[in-house]
Amino acid sequence: MPGINSRFDGKRVLADLNALRAIGAYKTGVHKPTFSEPHLRSLDWLAEQLPDAGLVATIDGIGNVLGTSAKAGPKLLAGSHLESQNHAGWLDGPLGVIYALEAARVINTDPGTNGAVEVAAWCDEEGHFGSFLGSRSFVDAVTDADIDAARDRSSDRTMRQALRDAGFAGRARLTAEPSRHIGYLEAHIEQGDTLESSGLKIGVVTSIVGIWQYRISFTGAQNHAGTTRMAVRRDAGLALARFCVAIDDSFPALCGPRTVWTTGRITLDPGAPSIIPGGAEMLFQIRDDNPEVIARLEAQLHRLAAEATAQGRCDVKVERIRTGVPAMMTPAFQDAIEAASAACAGGKSIRMPSGAGHDAQVLATVMPAAMLFVPSIGGISHHWSENTDDADIVTGAEVFVETCRRLLAG
Amino acid sequence: MPGINSRFDGKRVLADLNALRAIGAYKTGVHKPTFSEPHLRSLDWLAEQLPDAGLVATIDGIGNVLGTSAKAGPKLLAGSHLESQNHAGWLDGPLGVIYALEAARVINTDPGTNGAVEVAAWCDEEGHFGSFLGSRSFVDAVTDADIDAARDRSSDRTMRQALRDAGFAGRARLTAEPSRHIGYLEAHIEQGDTLESSGLKIGVVTSIVGIWQYRISFTGAQNHAGTTRMAVRRDAGLALARFCVAIDDSFPALCGPRTVWTTGRITLDPGAPSIIPGGAEMLFQIRDDNPEVIARLEAQLHRLAAEATAQGRCDVKVERIRTGVPAMMTPAFQDAIEAASAACAGGKSIRMPSGAGHDAQVLATVMPAAMLFVPSIGGISHHWSENTDDADIVTGAEVFVETCRRLLAG
Repeated sequence: MPGINSRFDGKRVLADLNALRAIGAYKTGVHKPTFSEPHLRSLDWLAEQLPDAGLVATIDGIGNVLGTSAKAGPKLLAGSHLESQNHAGWLDGPLGVIYALEAARVINTDPGTNGAVEVAAWCDEEGHFGSFLGSRSFVDAVTDADIDAARDRSSDRTMRQALRDAGFAGRARLTAEPSRHIGYLEAHIEQGDTLESSGLKIGVVTSIVGIWQYRISFTGAQNHAGTTRMAVRRDAGLALARFCVAIDDSFPALCGPRTVWTTGRITLDPGAPSIIPGGAEMLFQIRDDNPEVIARLEAQLHRLAAEATAQGRCDVKVERIRTGVPAMMTPAFQDAIEAASAACAGGKSIRMPSGAGHDAQVLATVMPAAMLFVPSIGGISHHWSENTDDADIVTGAEVFVETCRRLLAG
Repeated sequence: MPGINSRFDGKRVLADLNALRAIGAYKTGVHKPTFSEPHLRSLDWLAEQLPDAGLVATIDGIGNVLGTSAKAGPKLLAGSHLESQNHAGWLDGPLGVIYALEAARVINTDPGTNGAVEVAAWCDEEGHFGSFLGSRSFVDAVTDADIDAARDRSSDRTMRQALRDAGFAGRARLTAEPSRHIGYLEAHIEQGDTLESSGLKIGVVTSIVGIWQYRISFTGAQNHAGTTRMAVRRDAGLALARFCVAIDDSFPALCGPRTVWTTGRITLDPGAPSIIPGGAEMLFQIRDDNPEVIARLEAQLHRLAAEATAQGRCDVKVERIRTGVPAMMTPAFQDAIEAASAACAGGKSIRMPSGAGHDAQVLATVMPAAMLFVPSIGGISHHWSENTDDADIVTGAEVFVETCRRLLAG
């Protein structure tokens, strides 16, 4: 039915997103863990929409949904994911899938537009079973042994069992055909407040930052909290608190413009109210897209540890337990998003890194890749109250479709 | 057999302590939780020694061992406890019991010495089942319902079951007879390094400090550790770290000479490496024997909380969850210990508060009470490596026996 769907329709985008929100609704958000019943129903829902966009739908052996086109000309891959964090928002994932679906509907059925958009929903971007298992499977970076080992972090159900329960066991896993796609495009809510706080509508993602993670351990002397004088204590918990403050006081002068760092977990040993902790540990994370910035900050961590150790109360050890690899987004694709923003969003765009991980960083290992962000109200995400103004959702969709058109036009 | 035992015997004191160490030995210490088999064997061992000290032994319905004398004249109650912390030291408890036993052997069998020493081993001073249940039972501060509710913190065995297993169920619980005793005397290892670091041999305890405990809660905003800019974060964990440091920076100017304070437990919510903690909590304890000092420090906690809250990032709430009552030791008894130290320990004594809790604080609610400390090597306690030089153990025992003599002499 060429031409029938060929005009962009913002109302249709909103209706589709609300249809997905109705599946597994939780307050104003959704509860759709990977391979849960509402997640599987969402995959089926998408597979049912794809033919209207001129696509043949497949759900593969790891739960990826892929819509492929027989149309002549270049192919652009686009999508995101359909599962959610537990009791989380309605847009994190579905927004990018529905933008891709809308682009496919507009472009694939229009004989006047060159090439086609192929739509993907990558399974388990939210990491219930692992780390980007769906998109990593598509770029051939997941082995059968990886799947054998994967378990749901909430229920402990194995991924194999979940695949059997879903009816996906035994299906082939689809992988990227070399040179089939000119690249990958993904839209997402920003999950921060950069766009909202500056009145902008589109974030042109320059890179997806890498995550460097550290275990910082403090060894003092466990002792009685009543009988040990303050002057002779070697309190590992206090050393940890001073270290956190020293990081926060010294990092701003050394970091990049968008570096973020977080102490997410603190443990005292033994953690009893009447015992001076002899040991303490913190999990510390730095995110940036510039390894030189990370090198400076990591050197500072070691300097602070050496200074604290030299004071003789506690030994401080800094151990890197995760090394980040930033994914740089393709510059020509960034230019296309910016041009589309100028055409459809009054130029209200800004180039910015993504502090969160996305499937685009995985696809970027095998093809040109890019992302665009729309504003998040209050910067909230991973919570059921996550939201974006309907008008911003529609503007983002227009920019997305226009970007696809421009990329396919070459 | 009057006179046979009437000479102080330091070798006998050491032999007895080593006999108790052999029951439930763990490395150079012991593992003797309340109502464990080695603990029960230790109670029986003590009951077997008491007749040689002219005492009639009873093990009562809560596991207290009491040796009572029929000798004319004043009675002094003396003792400590026989159970240990898990995998802990050999002297914490037994030292005070064996000193009392030695004093009873020397004094009770000597017709030339006025009055008698009655020996007690209080059950569960180490709090496996509760808080000072044995000595509190003796001062009539434990109800049957309290015992019904008590459970072993390690094994979850009820106290009732443990009493049945030990064969103590159904026995009466002994309580203090009004005006039977002129007072209570207890010896203990210091569990700190005040004596060792100053070359002293005897600590004359002036008071047993009270413990005031606080829950300090920090409420910020949970958010994504990758997408939330540093400038807009409301990180409850960082607020907690700054609070710990502010306490440590400001308390020294406000505290008393022996005040101690400890943050024993820290919890971040949700405690995940990629999430900015929206909540944090610390358990904080202050020990002192002067409620005015506590009032100053508590006011400072509230001032720091108000200042931190006023900065607008996190709300800080300080909640007192345990109010301490310091136990003052009887001045005339302190004088007697000091005089005995002058006679038997070259005057190498110092008056000092006890930062740890002891049964003496419970006995002090119904009769005059006092304590003396002997040095702890390295200040170590609640660990199997806890120790005191044999010579210091013997000196302490001599001072203890001489103190008993002086108190009974009136």
